[in-house]
Parts: sequence; C-alpha cells; structure tokens
Amino acid sequence: FACPPHRGTTTSSHYSSTNMRLKLPITCFILQIILIILFGVLVQYDEDTDAKKHHHGNHSKTKPDIENDFYYRYPSFQDVHVMIFVGFGFLMTFLQRYGFSSVGFNFLIAAFSLQWATLMQGFFHGLHEGKIHIGVESMINADFCTGSVLISFGAVLGKTSPVQLLFMAVFEVTLFAVNEYILLTHLGTRDAGGSMTIHTFGAYFGLMVTRILYRPNLDKSKHKNCSVYHSDLFAMIGTLYLWMFWPSFNSAITEHGDPQHRTAMNTYYSLAACTLSTYAMSSLTAHDGKLDMVHIQNAALAGGVAAGTAGEMMLTPFGSMIVGFLAGIISVLGYKYLTPILENKLKIQDTCGIHNLHGMPGVLGAIVGAVTASLASKEVYGEGLEKVFPEVAGGHRTASYQGGVQAISLAVTLGMALFGGLIVGFILKLPIFGAPRDTTCFEDSLYWEVRKPQSHFSYAEKKIGTSFSITVLFYKQFLWKTNISD
Amino acid sequence: FACPPHRGTTTSSHYSSTNMRLKLPITCFILQIILIILFGVLVQYDEDTDAKKHHHGNHSKTKPDIENDFYYRYPSFQDVHVMIFVGFGFLMTFLQRYGFSSVGFNFLIAAFSLQWATLMQGFFHGLHEGKIHIGVESMINADFCTGSVLISFGAVLGKTSPVQLLFMAVFEVTLFAVNEYILLTHLGTRDAGGSMTIHTFGAYFGLMVTRILYRPNLDKSKHKNCSVYHSDLFAMIGTLYLWMFWPSFNSAITEHGDPQHRTAMNTYYSLAACTLSTYAMSSLTAHDGKLDMVHIQNAALAGGVAAGTAGEMMLTPFGSMIVGFLAGIISVLGYKYLTPILENKLKIQDTCGIHNLHGMPGVLGAIVGAVTASLASKEVYGEGLEKVFPEVAGGHRTASYQGGVQAISLAVTLGMALFGGLIVGFILKLPIFGAPRDTTCFEDSLYWEVRKPQSHFSYAEKKIGTSFSITVLFYKQFLWKTNISD
Amino acid sequence: FACPPHRGTTTSSHYSSTNMRLKLPITCFILQIILIILFGVLVQYDEDTDAKKHHHGNHSKTKPDIENDFYYRYPSFQDVHVMIFVGFGFLMTFLQRYGFSSVGFNFLIAAFSLQWATLMQGFFHGLHEGKIHIGVESMINADFCTGSVLISFGAVLGKTSPVQLLFMAVFEVTLFAVNEYILLTHLGTRDAGGSMTIHTFGAYFGLMVTRILYRPNLDKSKHKNCSVYHSDLFAMIGTLYLWMFWPSFNSAITEHGDPQHRTAMNTYYSLAACTLSTYAMSSLTAHDGKLDMVHIQNAALAGGVAAGTAGEMMLTPFGSMIVGFLAGIISVLGYKYLTPILENKLKIQDTCGIHNLHGMPGVLGAIVGAVTASLASKEVYGEGLEKVFPEVAGGHRTASYQGGVQAISLAVTLGMALFGGLIVGFILKLPIFGAPRDTTCFEDSLYWEVRKPQSHFSYAEKKIGTSFSITVLFYKQFLWKTNISD
Repeated sequence: FACPPHRGTTTSSHYSSTNMRLKLPITCFILQIILIILFGVLVQYDEDTDAKKHHHGNHSKTKPDIENDFYYRYPSFQDVHVMIFVGFGFLMTFLQRYGFSSVGFNFLIAAFSLQWATLMQGFFHGLHEGKIHIGVESMINADFCTGSVLISFGAVLGKTSPVQLLFMAVFEVTLFAVNEYILLTHLGTRDAGGSMTIHTFGAYFGLMVTRILYRPNLDKSKHKNCSVYHSDLFAMIGTLYLWMFWPSFNSAITEHGDPQHRTAMNTYYSLAACTLSTYAMSSLTAHDGKLDMVHIQNAALAGGVAAGTAGEMMLTPFGSMIVGFLAGIISVLGYKYLTPILENKLKIQDTCGIHNLHGMPGVLGAIVGAVTASLASKEVYGEGLEKVFPEVAGGHRTASYQGGVQAISLAVTLGMALFGGLIVGFILKLPIFGAPRDTTCFEDSLYWEVRKPQSHFSYAEKKIGTSFSITVLFYKQFLWKTNISD
Repeated sequence: FACPPHRGTTTSSHYSSTNMRLKLPITCFILQIILIILFGVLVQYDEDTDAKKHHHGNHSKTKPDIENDFYYRYPSFQDVHVMIFVGFGFLMTFLQRYGFSSVGFNFLIAAFSLQWATLMQGFFHGLHEGKIHIGVESMINADFCTGSVLISFGAVLGKTSPVQLLFMAVFEVTLFAVNEYILLTHLGTRDAGGSMTIHTFGAYFGLMVTRILYRPNLDKSKHKNCSVYHSDLFAMIGTLYLWMFWPSFNSAITEHGDPQHRTAMNTYYSLAACTLSTYAMSSLTAHDGKLDMVHIQNAALAGGVAAGTAGEMMLTPFGSMIVGFLAGIISVLGYKYLTPILENKLKIQDTCGIHNLHGMPGVLGAIVGAVTASLASKEVYGEGLEKVFPEVAGGHRTASYQGGVQAISLAVTLGMALFGGLIVGFILKLPIFGAPRDTTCFEDSLYWEVRKPQSHFSYAEKKIGTSFSITVLFYKQFLWKTNISD
Repeated sequence: FACPPHRGTTTSSHYSSTNMRLKLPITCFILQIILIILFGVLVQYDEDTDAKKHHHGNHSKTKPDIENDFYYRYPSFQDVHVMIFVGFGFLMTFLQRYGFSSVGFNFLIAAFSLQWATLMQGFFHGLHEGKIHIGVESMINADFCTGSVLISFGAVLGKTSPVQLLFMAVFEVTLFAVNEYILLTHLGTRDAGGSMTIHTFGAYFGLMVTRILYRPNLDKSKHKNCSVYHSDLFAMIGTLYLWMFWPSFNSAITEHGDPQHRTAMNTYYSLAACTLSTYAMSSLTAHDGKLDMVHIQNAALAGGVAAGTAGEMMLTPFGSMIVGFLAGIISVLGYKYLTPILENKLKIQDTCGIHNLHGMPGVLGAIVGAVTASLASKEVYGEGLEKVFPEVAGGHRTASYQGGVQAISLAVTLGMALFGGLIVGFILKLPIFGAPRDTTCFEDSLYWEVRKPQSHFSYAEKKIGTSFSITVLFYKQFLWKTNISD
C-alpha cells in the first residue's frame, strides 16, 4: 500500500540545497564509521563489565555483586536516558508542524553524541594503558554531555538541518569535554548535576550559535512557530519526565551514600517549590490571569537546573526550596520580558527559550553552589565533608577558596560556551549544510515524508466522494435561503 | 513572534470571578512561602541523607552503602512518582478540551501536596527533637498522600478552579494524615498499598465534595464532557503507566524482603486478571459488543486498588487473581449502571468515575484485607508473620482481632472521608475561588491561553490567503450547478 | 451525560459476524477462569517471595536482603514491562484509525499472555513437588514470551478480531515455551536477549499466520492503512521506550555481574550505531532525501534485536556497533524493497513490517551469536567463561561445538515458528472469530465505541449553532461577489 505523501506548497524538492539525499547519508555514514574505528582502537570494557578482569569473585556465580557500581547506578542511568530521549525529545514537540523533527533529530543527534562523548570524555578523563575504559558511569556521563547538546538544539530548533545539527554536536561535545575536564579535573570544581558544565554551557553555546545564524526574515515562517492544542500536550510528556527524573539526573554520579540521597531530595524540593512559583508568575504576568503552557512546560523545570551544583551539598530542603522558588520566578520573567528583548535588540532567536530554562537558572545554580561551598565546614558535614569537598576535607583548600573556584568555573564555562558558539556558529553558516530557507523554517515536510493529513472530515469526504461536499453546500444554501432572516 | 491566542466565544475575561490573575498568584505564593518557612523551622535530613549523621562508615567512600534503605526504595519511589504525575495526569486528559487543565492542575496540586504532605505526615509520624526527619520513605509517603488528593480531583475535574483545587489539597492532605495516623499508628492497621488510606479515603472525600458542589445546570457544558479520538489515546498513556507501576506502588513501603516481593507479584496478577474481566464486561454490557475506552482506561486498574491492603499478605497468586477478576467486573458495572444513578438520584457528578475505579475497589480491597488478615497464622507465614502482622506475631492480638481492626479501619476511613468532604465541600462553595460557570466547565480556555487552533485546513487557508476559500466556494458552486441533478 | 457515539458509514452493527458481544466476553471469561483454576492448583510463591520459606534471616526485619535476586532484577523487570505495554502498544498506534485497537488489544493479549506464559514456561522449566514456583525471574520471562506474541500481532495488525488474537496467543505462548525449552534446556543454547527465542520466533510465526490469513482484497481498506501526523508522534513514544530500555531487556535475565553489565552496554552501543545507519539509509533510499517515519520508528530498533544473543558475550563495543550498524541498513532496505515483494509475490501482508524489525535482525543476531560463541576462549573470558558458557567452561563442549548448537537452534526456531504459524493460521481462519471484512480492516470503530469526532471547527459550529455556518457562507458569498475579479 502506498500512502500518498503530502506534497503541499511547502515541499522543497526543487531547492537542491535542502535536499538531504546525499548530505545526510554521507555525514551519518562517515561519522559512524569513524566512531566504530575509534571504538575498535581505543575502547575497552571496564573491570565491572569485562568477563576476564572481573574478580570480585567471593560471590557464587548466581549471586549479585552487591558492591558493584553498576547495580546502584543503572536505575539512575535509565532515568537520565529517559530524560534525554523522551524528556528533551517531547519537550520540543510543542511546535505545530515540527514534531517529527523535534523528536527525530533529537533522537539522531543524541545517538551520535552518546558515542562521541564516550570517546571525548574518556580521552580527557585519562587513558588506561592507551585505552578508554567504559562502564555505567561513562554511559551516564555521555548522556550528560548529550543533554548539553540538546539544550543548544533548543535554541536553533526549526532553523537548522540535521546535517548542521550533527556538525554542531561534533564540535559541542568536544568543547564540552574540554570544559568539563578543566573544571572537574583541573580546578576541582563540584558540579554533580551540571548547572555549569551542562546547563550554562549548553545554553550560552546555543544562544551564541543562534545569534550567528540570525535570520532577519524569520517572520516569514512565524505562523508555524506556534503550538497547537495537541502539540502542547505532547510537550507536557517531555516536561513531566524531565521534572520527575531530575532528582536522578542531579544525583546520578554523586558519591554513593548520603550525597546521592541528599542530591535527589534537594532537587525534588527545589522542583516542587519552582512549580508553584511558576504557576503564580505565569498567571500574574498575563493580562487576563490565564496560564501559559510555555511557562508551565519550561519554567517549572528551572528548579532542577538551579539545584544542579549545590544539590549534593548541605543545602537543606529549606535552601533548596528557596532556590527553586526563585528559579521559577526568574524563568517566567525571562520568557515574558527578556526573550523579546533578546530577539529584537540582540538578534538572538531562541526558539525554546533555553536562556530562561537553562541559561539563567544555570547561572543561578552556579552562584548558589559557590556560596554554599564557601560556607562548608566540618561542623555541618562531619565525616561527610570528604565525599563532597575532598580538597577541603584534605586541608588543601579552605571552603571560601573552594567557593572562589566555583565562581571562576562559571566564568570559564561562560567563556568557553560563548567563544565556542561563536566559532561553531560561523562554521554552521557555511551554505553547504542544507539549512532551511526563511519560509520553510519550523516545517517538518522539508526533511520528512509527511503523509497527507487525513482529518476526520476529509476522510469522510473522500469516502463518500465529492457528492458529499456538494450535498453539504446544497444543504447550506437551502438553509441560507430559508433562514437568512434569523 | 506573537502566537495569537484564541479568543473565541468561551473566553471569560469579562467574568471577573474566574479571572485568576490575583487569586492564583496570591494563593500559590502564600502557600509556598508558608511551606518554605515551615520547612526551615521543622525539617531536617534523616540519617541516610545527612552528611554528618551518616555513620555506616565501614565502607570506603566510593562503595555504596549496601544496606541503605535509599538504594532499595528509590526505584520504587520513581515508579510511584511517574504514576502521580504521568499516570494520574494523563489518565484525566480524556476530555476533549480539558487536557491542559488535567495535566497542568494535576501537576500544580501534586507539587503542592508533596510538600504539604511531608509536613503533615512528618508531624503525625512523630517529631525527633522537634524536627521532622525526611528521607526516601517520606518522599514515597508524600506521593501516596498526593495520590489521594488526585483521586478526589478526578471527581471534580472540569468543574473547579485551580484555587479551589489548592484549597481542597490543603484540607485533604491534613485529613489524610490524620486518618493515616489513626489507622497505621493507633489501630495498627495494615494497609501498605492504601486500599483504605489512599483509595477509599480519596474517593469518598472527592465524591462528597462533588456532591456539595452539585451543579443542576451542568448539562449546559455536557457537549464538552466527552472524549475525542486523540484525547482517549493520551489517556491511555496514563492508564498504562498506572497499570505497569502499580506493583511498585503497593510494595513501595512494605517491609524489605519477601513482603515487598509478594506484594509486587500479587498486584501484578490481580491487574492481569482484572484486565481480562474488564474487556469481557465492557463488551458484554454494550448493546453492539463494542469496547468502551472509559472502561479500559479505568476499570482495568481496579485490580491494583483491590490488592492494596492484602497485597503484602499471603493472598497467593490464585487469590490475587480472583480479587482482580471481581474488581474488574464491579468497576465496569459501576460505570455502566451505578454512575448514572449516582448522578441522577444522588446528585453526585463524578467526572472520572472515581467511585468505580477507587471507591468500590477500595472497599473491596479493605474487605479482602480484613478477611485475609483474620486467616493469618504461623503455619502459613512462619517467621515471616512478624514482618506482616507484628502485633499478631508478638502475641498482642489474635488474627481475627486484626481482621476486626481492619474492618473498623474501613469504617473510620469512610467516616473521615465523608465528613471531611462535607466540610471542605462547603468551604469550596464560597464564591471567592473563581469556580467556572456552568457553561464554561470542561473548558481549558477559561484558565489557559489556548492558541488559536490551526488545523491543516485553516493553516493552508491562511497560507494561500482568502482567495483560496473563495476559489473553493466558486468551485463548489460550479460543481453544484453542474452536478445538482446527481 | 451521554456522549453520542459515532455511527458513520463504517460501523458494522449489522454484520453479525463481527459483533463481539458474546464472543469476546465468553473467550475472556473462560480463559481467565481456566487461568485462575490452574494457578490455584499449580502455582506457588518461590523462596524469595513466600513468607514461610524465606530464611535468609541473618538480617534484621527492616534491612533489605542484600543478596536477594528480586532487588537486582526488579528495575529491569519494570523496564521490560514498560516495553511490552507502552513500547509495543504505542509503536503500533501509527495507523490513523487504529490507535484504540493497537494500544487496547496489545494490552488485552499481553495481560492474558503474561498469565498463560507463567504456566507454560513454569511447566517446561520443571515443577517443584508438582508446583510451579514463581518470582521476579518468572515475571520477566513471561514478559519476554508476551513480547513474542506482540511481535506476531504486528504482522496481523488491523486484520484480526480480539478473539482471534487471544486464540493466537493461546497457541503461540505454548509453542514459544516448547521452543524455548528445547533451546535453553535441551540444546544448551545461549540466547539471553532472545534474538532467536523471542524475535525470530515471533516474527516468522506471525508472518506465516498473516500468509495463511492472506486477504486478496485488502486494498479496499488501504486508505486507512496509513499514518497521520499525530499518530506518527504517538508511535514515536513506543519507539523511544523500546530503544531506551532495550539494554534492560537483553540483560534482564543474564547472570549477575559482568555478563549483565556487558549485555546492557553492548546493546546500548548497538542501538546507537543502528540509529545513525537508519537515518542514513532512510534518506538515501528516498528519491528526495526525505526521512520516512516508518524507518525511524522501526529500523532504529533493529540494533537491539541483533544484539539479543551475543549481547552477553565478549562482543566488545566495537563488535556491537558493527552489528547495530548492519542491522539498521538491512532493516531499512527491507522496508523499502523487501516488504513490497513479500506482499505482492509471497502474499505476506505484514502490517508493521515485523520481518524488517524482528525477522531479519533476529536471524542476524542468531548468526552473530553463533560466530561469537564459536570464538569463545579462556583467554578472552577468563573465569567469566563459566557464567556465559558453562558447558564450554566445564569442558563438556568446545567453543565451536557451542557455535554449532547456536546455529542449529536458529534452524529449530525457524522450523517451529513456520510450522506453528501454519497450523495456527488455519485455525484462526475459521469463520467463527469475528474477523473484520476487507472493507473494515484498520478501523477502530468496528470493535470500539468511537465518539463522534469533534474538531475545533465542528465544536465551534455546534456551540454557536447553525447560524454560524450560514453566516460564514453568507460572508463567503459576499466576498465572492465582490472579490471574484481578484
């Protein structure tokens, strides 16, 4: 059965530049083959995963290795995995005619970034006898790095081809790994949930890319840059999965024991408080008090971003709730007042408003983390200080020095993101990647076979044939003539 | 880009009473600020979560604390969390024009109830040196209490403002905590999955509230109180997540070891049997044998409710399947025959049919629990008796006494729910909460910015301009004139 | 409130044969009652689940049994459970008018198959003193068997009544258990993720059934055998959950420790590589380079199928990625070129293209497994050899003999599936099961109450009354008369 594809006025088969038939396959194949070769040369199972190296063997073969990292990290890994693919993927389906691309390109660049991040992060985390050792922690870290790429995707959503996105991912993953290496390894920064490394980096990188890719005539497709009723419901699937699993995200690679539990709990209360302030602000800033789905879908998540750095610290539920409360307020205000300014004055066309969900809350999270770190003390953390601030516990640093390092890390991240986004933006501007024209932005049918929409109405019409329409018309005419005096 | 909001005939900007611009922000802000203050004064991390108090320290810092409750409860917690936000949220999206409110108000009142329940349950569970200690178990319990509020939400769905719902949650959470305290702490009732504390309480509380809020002219909006094709599919997302994770729900706070496993397994088989009887009854009670989505979405879950009390007991898979089988039958019969009676005779307008999904199956579950408890014996439970019935194992009670306590607990719960619902119903009836008018029930656009629907048709129409419509009309006219004799 | 059901031209209340009012209830009730009786006679809790038998008792009652299988398997079980109900269920919602049946019949036959598989697999795995002992592993295995039935469902989707599907499940579960018994118990085959037992078996069984049920006039309903925009988005929910949780699926019942971790990781990298080759091939094989949702929804999952057998072996990430890469290519080519041949030449009407997602990738997985097994050695696996190839480690077999056994197992599976499908196909062809007519295939309203679709347009029309339409018409007439010269 051949379902007829929809070839409306928006198809672009005559624009050779946006035809992906060679560009996308060649890009995917080359990238994947390079990945396979590099994995063959460089990558090995880690101790927990390799059949030979695995020697915790005081347990019988049918008993679980009860101290094995994998068992304790795997459920968190799966939660993070759901956030990356369903969370980010569906959050971006809010556009009325861009659902395939939102979910589908999210899927594609995530699948690529996961592999590439394994290599890049493994390289910077250090080789073992020339090899990258991978395990459950590397899988989580790769998902984290992918999250950062998907945040940037949100800024350029609807205005970029899949080939552009893949190249953006190539560069962004690399820079992410460098920035992460500088922060976590060199500076000794604490950033378990990635307020800086993931959110601030991804947001400002993406904002700079979309600035460079500025389209003065984007209003030609502005009627498609809107949601419809069902697309907003699809987007809520993404929102809820991000919201529910954010405690797993922030705690996924914290130290086992109390830091992990504390992080999950702090994030949970930050998100809950953020949700109430988001609803309040959304209603308050509307002239008729009506809630705006854009705020609910996005700003309610800002509490998770803002708890990313300090989540593992002794922030207390009280502190977490204050942070989340403020994050929700800032985020809604950003959507309402700052996004139009960014667009009109600074020429930053931020499709998903990542500046409000990841940018400002990420910076807030970094600042909260710096302040909380500078207040750390043996009195508050006891023996647990070593798990959260090993440098401070070991006497190599004072708490306020650690706080200063945290603040510097934010500056480094912002610099890396903006400078990286600048370079990558210009690369992506090259007219070889098949970017959509201004009139065909936010439109799936440019890159996807979109079946001819068969509404219930048109379906019925087709079934019964043209005579149906005529009957309707006749009926209406008749009514018109007889009832026109009503 | 300004997406034009839809201002159809149903907007209510001229009804000052339903304008939420001040009511909702003020309510949210005051509630959240009170929560933050109370958390600051009263709440502390528990031992597993606090950096200082955490002294299981015979493990190195990178090894998991293998006996820590958190690791074993956290995956269950996340399953329950998904049920609360995605399960309940999407289950209620079945209404054609109330999807934003179903998911969105569910989200709002859940985020509030989680925090408020932490305080209320913590207070009744007992303070430690003036403080409430929170951890993974308190997070699960807060989700449970929230579930009860969301059940009640199902009864009043479409007929209440978000401010009404928040106030309902304030009172219901408090009463829930009191009832739970009486049952679990004072009476020594066993109710791990909450057939009584969660489902019976939430259902009869909600039914009484909707009785008090009875709207004689609700049929003015009855054409919106229906599902459409896609809204039923969204609702199935909710159904399936509730169904799949109900074993985690019922077992989330049971004792570790065999009780937890048994509860999960009993619930699993109860649900499977319930599903088959639901399909059978749905087809049997339709005049043309066609299945009804309302039954599938709801009645197939009744087996989980009915296994809530006895799930942890030695109910056996055989017994579980009988319970689930009956629950499915009762629930479909309720939807088919009892709901219209409740509405027409008792003036109980139960939007989601919570009486059929939570009310009757909850009572069934309580009765099954009472009977199963009264049959408990050392022969059947062995050493395990202590984990399920510590009072019986300790010799303080006979099994039949425990069964009597279970039955009394049901009566107490029903009394608390009905009396509480009565009071709260009258409070919510005060004309200050911005309740919708009879004509604007079940309508998102009252409280939400709803973008102007852009169907594929109207989208094409807009693109090509008005001339398109005229061409169509001309074409139809032409056809009409030439083919009218067909 | 009575929502008027939609009685369009496609309802079939006058076709007595497809009326399910007696057939479906009787089938469900009889099957469920048989299940309850057999469970009552045959089934017992296993040691980990029974209150009495549970004697790991060196832990206090509130501490988890840290070596208990349940805790380590339960999160994987829930992931598999999600794949069965949400993954398979929503993957099949791509059809425009068959979403209720896709999700709903998936739900029904899964709920039945879970119970029946527990009995059949328990029977073949061996009775303990005349009883089947059930626990978390039996629950996972039952989900696996159910997965196989749902694969076959994909081939006959849209062309079968729920009664046919239930009878198909009765026979297929039985044959699945026999085949699994021959392979795993008699031949000592390794197939943890079920490339053979689940995917190859389910696919070729289903293909043979749909061959026997061949409908020469199926093109009468071909206009319904297509997707629409929103149905493709719903299907992506299924795809993503299958993709994300496939690592849990393949590793759910592998040995604890390194085999489980390795399986999850191999599957993860196989899927990632498969996704890139799927996108590449989908674009490459389209004349205008546009991606096809059918490929993305299905072929991107082939990497999980192909890693089903060798996933637990020392396939290495490098090998896994090659396998996934090839699986994606094969699968897209199958959809593009083989499916039309199967349909036109071999009269195999494969609605979901299960031959491309489960058939060929399953065979590929079996071959990869045979080759990888034949290369197993003490040098590579060390002490771990016993966990993966106990027969080889014990000296009872050489590695190449194990490889031969794996190859033979594929042949046995193919034979069982094709022969079983032949017999069952003829049984299902009996004109007593209420199969749909050729004109009413792929149509929910045959078996479901489908509410009258209320589009935004018709909703507005209804609200304002007929006068609205007339006003519109009048306005258009007016425009027509005044602007016709444009």
